[in-house]
Amino acid sequence: MTLDPDAQKPRLDMETLVSLCKRRGFIFQSSEIYGGLQGAWDYGPLGVEMTANIKRAWWRAMVQERDDIVGIDASILMHPQVWKASGHVDTFVDPMVDCRNCQSRFREDELQSDVCPTCGQRGQFTEPRMFNLMLRTFLGPVQDDAATVYLRPETAQGIFVNFENVLNSMRRKLPFGIAQIGKSFRNEITPRNFIFRVRELEQMEMEYFCYPETSLALHEQWIEERRNWYARFGLKMENLRVRAHAKEELSHYSQATSDFEYLFPMGWGELEGVAHRGAYDLTQHASSSGKQISYFDEERKEHIVPHVIEPALGVGRCMLAFMTDAYDEEIDEKGEKRVVLHLHPALAPIKVAVLPLSRNEKLTPKAREVHALVRKHWMTQYDDAQSIGRRYRRQDEIGTPLCVTVDFQTVEEDNAVTIRERDSMAQVRVPVAGLVDALRDRLPDVV
Amino acid sequence: MTLDPDAQKPRLDMETLVSLCKRRGFIFQSSEIYGGLQGAWDYGPLGVEMTANIKRAWWRAMVQERDDIVGIDASILMHPQVWKASGHVDTFVDPMVDCRNCQSRFREDELQSDVCPTCGQRGQFTEPRMFNLMLRTFLGPVQDDAATVYLRPETAQGIFVNFENVLNSMRRKLPFGIAQIGKSFRNEITPRNFIFRVRELEQMEMEYFCYPETSLALHEQWIEERRNWYARFGLKMENLRVRAHAKEELSHYSQATSDFEYLFPMGWGELEGVAHRGAYDLTQHASSSGKQISYFDEERKEHIVPHVIEPALGVGRCMLAFMTDAYDEEIDEKGEKRVVLHLHPALAPIKVAVLPLSRNEKLTPKAREVHALVRKHWMTQYDDAQSIGRRYRRQDEIGTPLCVTVDFQTVEEDNAVTIRERDSMAQVRVPVAGLVDALRDRLPDVV
Repeated sequence: MTLDPDAQKPRLDMETLVSLCKRRGFIFQSSEIYGGLQGAWDYGPLGVEMTANIKRAWWRAMVQERDDIVGIDASILMHPQVWKASGHVDTFVDPMVDCRNCQSRFREDELQSDVCPTCGQRGQFTEPRMFNLMLRTFLGPVQDDAATVYLRPETAQGIFVNFENVLNSMRRKLPFGIAQIGKSFRNEITPRNFIFRVRELEQMEMEYFCYPETSLALHEQWIEERRNWYARFGLKMENLRVRAHAKEELSHYSQATSDFEYLFPMGWGELEGVAHRGAYDLTQHASSSGKQISYFDEERKEHIVPHVIEPALGVGRCMLAFMTDAYDEEIDEKGEKRVVLHLHPALAPIKVAVLPLSRNEKLTPKAREVHALVRKHWMTQYDDAQSIGRRYRRQDEIGTPLCVTVDFQTVEEDNAVTIRERDSMAQVRVPVAGLVDALRDRLPDVV
Repeated sequence: MTLDPDAQKPRLDMETLVSLCKRRGFIFQSSEIYGGLQGAWDYGPLGVEMTANIKRAWWRAMVQERDDIVGIDASILMHPQVWKASGHVDTFVDPMVDCRNCQSRFREDELQSDVCPTCGQRGQFTEPRMFNLMLRTFLGPVQDDAATVYLRPETAQGIFVNFENVLNSMRRKLPFGIAQIGKSFRNEITPRNFIFRVRELEQMEMEYFCYPETSLALHEQWIEERRNWYARFGLKMENLRVRAHAKEELSHYSQATSDFEYLFPMGWGELEGVAHRGAYDLTQHASSSGKQISYFDEERKEHIVPHVIEPALGVGRCMLAFMTDAYDEEIDEKGEKRVVLHLHPALAPIKVAVLPLSRNEKLTPKAREVHALVRKHWMTQYDDAQSIGRRYRRQDEIGTPLCVTVDFQTVEEDNAVTIRERDSMAQVRVPVAGLVDALRDRLPDVV
C-alpha cells in the first residue's frame, strides 16, 4: 500500500495484487514454465469463477433483465472484407518508432522525451511508421494473400454484420440492442500493467441501435446505466470518473465517446468506453457488401439506418478494477493484519466456505453433509486444514462472503451451524434445516 | 425427416435443422453478407443462450458439484515451445493430396476412390503431403520466425503448463482434475456438416490427474460419468454409443481413447472423446522446460508424475446432438403439424414465455407485470403478436418448456394465470402470487 499523490490516501500497489493473484489462484502468467508470453495471462481456479461472475452480472443486466436487448456470439475469424469495410485495415494503427542505437521499439505517443528509455541515447529515434494492430493468420492449406484473415480486434463488427439476421429472426423494433462477450486480439507494441494492456482480451460490448434523432440522449442515458451497474456491484464511486474524449482522440468510427476511468494501482486508466458510432458501421457494410442493411419503419414507411451507442469494456480490466476496489488491509481485534477482499457477493469466486471446527471424526461427516447441501446452490470450498482462525483469514483474502462452521455443539446438541460474515466478522447460529435460506438472504443478487 | 437406413426410423435431415437455426436465431453463417467464411459460424440470440446453458451444465457437473475438480481459463495464444513439447508441431497433421487436373485439395483419408470428387478425373492425385492443422500468427511489431505463435488447437495444453500453479495455489491432493472451456482453432482442409467440422471451435476439456495404477479404472469410470451427464440432460441413449479407438487411430499422446458417437443427421459421428493420455504431456513439458512438474506424495515420500484421463468435447457438436435429439414433428389435435424441440429445461434458451391472450389495453399492463416478475429468475420472452395458438407453436419450435398466459379472467376475476407445458400441452391455472414457485417446480435442474 502506497500513498496515492492524486487521491491522497493509501492505495494498493500492483505488485501486492499480482502476488495475491498468483498465490491464491486468480491469475497466472501465460506459459510461465517457458518464460511467459508477453501480453497474455491465464485465469486460475478463482480467477475463472470471478470473470464468469462478472460476465454473468453484465449479461443479466444487459440481456436477461431487459426487453430490448438480445445476445449473440460471433466467431473470432471473420471474412477479411469486414475489416476493410470497418476501416480497421487502414486506420487501426499506432505510430511506432525505433531507437537507431539499441533497436528498441516504442509507441511514439507514449514516449515522454527524445531520450531512449532502454539505452538512454538522445535523439536516435526513426521517423514514426504506422503499425497495424490486427493479428493475421492464414486459413486453408495455401498460405497466400487470398487466405489471409484477421483475428478480430473488437467484437462489435460481429454484431454489425449480423444486424439483418438478428432483426429478421427476432422481429425487433427500434430501439434495440445486441450484446456480445468474446475474445479479441490486438498486437499491442508494449503490453504492460498486468491484465490492463494485453494482446488477448475478452470484451463485453453492446451495440444499441436507435433512431438518429434520439441518439444523443441515449448516449447520455447509457453512461448513466453503466454507472449504475458499477454501483450495483459495489464499486466505490470516488474511484470512478467519466471523461469525454477530445475531438482529436476519437476513434475513426466515433462521433463522441465518454470513458469511464478507474483509479487503478498505476493511476487513472480507461475502464469502459461509451461511444456514439453514428451510422458509420452499418453504412460501411452496406456499401461494401452491396446488401441493404437498414430498418424499415412501419409507421413512417421508410428505411432508416439506425445510429449506434456502444458501451464496451474488457473483462480483465473490469476484474482489475473490482479487485483493486475490494482490497483492504485491516488490523483485527488481536492486532493482527487481516487482508480482505470486500467483493460484492455476486462477484466473489466462492460464495460459501464450509469449515469443521477441527479435523475430527465426529465433525467431518456432518461437515461433509452440510457441504453437499450448500454446494448444490453455490460455488463453495471445504477446508479443514490448520486452525479455524487461519481458515477464516484464507477465505477473507479471496473474498468469500460467508463461512459456515460445524462444531461439536452441531453434532452433540443442536444440529445448528455458525454463519460468519466476512465484512463484519459477525457470527450467527442457524439450524441446518434453515441454512440454505439463511445463506440466500445474505447473498443478494447472487444467481 | 428421412428414413435412417441405420436406425430404421425417421430422422431429421441437416437442411431442416440449418433452416430452423437460421430462421429462429440459433445459428448464422459467419460473415454471411460477404459470402461467408468456411468453417466459421455465429451463434444468434437463441444459440448463445443454448451454448451458455450447455457450458453451465458441464461446469456445474464438473466443477461446482465436485470436491476434486477446479477450473481455469488459459489464453489462446501460448509460448510456441508449448506446441513443440506437446508434439503438435510434428504430429498434428493431416495427409493432403492435390488433383493435378483441377487443383482441388483433399484430405487423403477422406477420399473414397481415385476419382477426383470435383472434376471426375481418375488417378490424377499427387503423393500425399503432411499438412499441419495449427493456425499461425505473429506477435509483436516484427514478423519473423521468432515471433511466430500458434492459435491453440486444443485447450488441454493450457492445463498441463499450469499444473504446478494450480497444485500450489489450490493445495490439491491426487486424484484431482482441472476443467476448462475455451476456443480452439484447427485449419481443417474440408470443413463441413454445419457446426460439426469447423475451423474455430469451443471446447470443454477436463484433465483428471491420478496415480498411474488407478488410471485404467478411472478411464472406465469417466466414460460412465460422461454417459450419465448426457442422460441427465435427456439425450436418448439409443442415439449414443461408445467406440474404443483401434491402436492405429490413437492420437500421438494417447494410450487409449473411447469416443462417444452420436447419430447426427449425417450419420454416426464423434461427439466426445475420453482419452487416456498417460504421463505423456507432463513428462514432455518437464523435459522441454527443464522444470520439475510432478506431484509430491506425502505418505510415500516420492515424486509422482500423474497419469491423465481426459473427457473432451466441442460445445458446437454438443449443441448439434441435443438439437437433433430434441427435434420432433407431431400432428396436433387439429391435424396440424407441430414442430417442437423437446429440450431439457436446463438447456432450453428461453425458460418461460409470457403471453397475453391478445394485445389489449386491459391485458398488457398485467402481462408486463407478470413478465417483470418472471424475468428476474430466468431467460424469458414476451410475445403478443398474432394468435395465441401461433405463439404457442413459435415457443414449441424453440423449445421453451413453459408458457404463461394472461387472460381476461386474470384481470377481472382471479389474478391467476395459465401455465402451459410444451411436451404434454397440458394447462394448469395458478395464482400469480405462487407463479414463481410453480414455475420453479416445473424447471428441474435449472439454475
